[in-house]
Amino acid sequence: MKKTGGHELKIILRVDFPGGIRLGRGKVQLMEFIRETGSISAAGRAMDMSYRRAWLLVDELNHMFRQPVVESQRGGKQGGGAALTAFGEELLARMHAVQTTVIKTIDTDLAWLEKHRATMTTSEKPED
Amino acid sequence: MKKTGGHELKIILRVDFPGGIRLGRGKVQLMEFIRETGSISAAGRAMDMSYRRAWLLVDELNHMFRQPVVESQRGGKQGGGAALTAFGEELLARMHAVQTTVIKTIDTDLAWLEKHRATMTTSEKPED
Repeated sequence: MKKTGGHELKIILRVDFPGGIRLGRGKVQLMEFIRETGSISAAGRAMDMSYRRAWLLVDELNHMFRQPVVESQRGGKQGGGAALTAFGEELLARMHAVQTTVIKTIDTDLAWLEKHRATMTTSEKPED
Repeated sequence: MKKTGGHELKIILRVDFPGGIRLGRGKVQLMEFIRETGSISAAGRAMDMSYRRAWLLVDELNHMFRQPVVESQRGGKQGGGAALTAFGEELLARMHAVQTTVIKTIDTDLAWLEKHRATMTTSEKPED
């Protein structure tokens, strides 16, 4: 979900729910952007995602839990926006905390992987 | 990499190296099966993977680190087998330890997610 503290390596964490439903980086980022932009379409754009794709992810998020994660607000000139529910805020905070805790916990292991990893080659994509 | 202890949710952990190279569930499982079967093709079969795909993953593993992870043994009637190197064994043990530590560390968060997750619906695939 985020670049690892002092490391060149990134930790990607995903929770698999029964039924093949996943809670990972994509949904967490989408929650972050909805929180920031107040809009599902703006959040989707920020992630280079179609509105349809963003909407489907929000719909999945809203059906993964007993309570909705994102709520749409109708009305206004731009047809209303979207926001995280109180539960959504709690979920996002918890996912961030999990990420921080995990990075801290396996810091030594990341350092070990880093020490042993092969050095950069020209075949590496610079954007990574 | 493994079903979470007492939880219905699974934690999937992946480490992203620079250059878009990933160390996650697939490579860890492949190492486990190579260790178990002593063969890249048998390991690939166990994972429903073509020999080519298994071989490419092994090749990637062997170039991610300063030292090789898997070594091929030539000779013998079946054209030799494969095994983890001492470094590969250490890597696998470390990845298992990371997985165990992470599950233990975020146990409370997994329990929270589980408590709040929506109950099963008929649209869920039974194999999950």
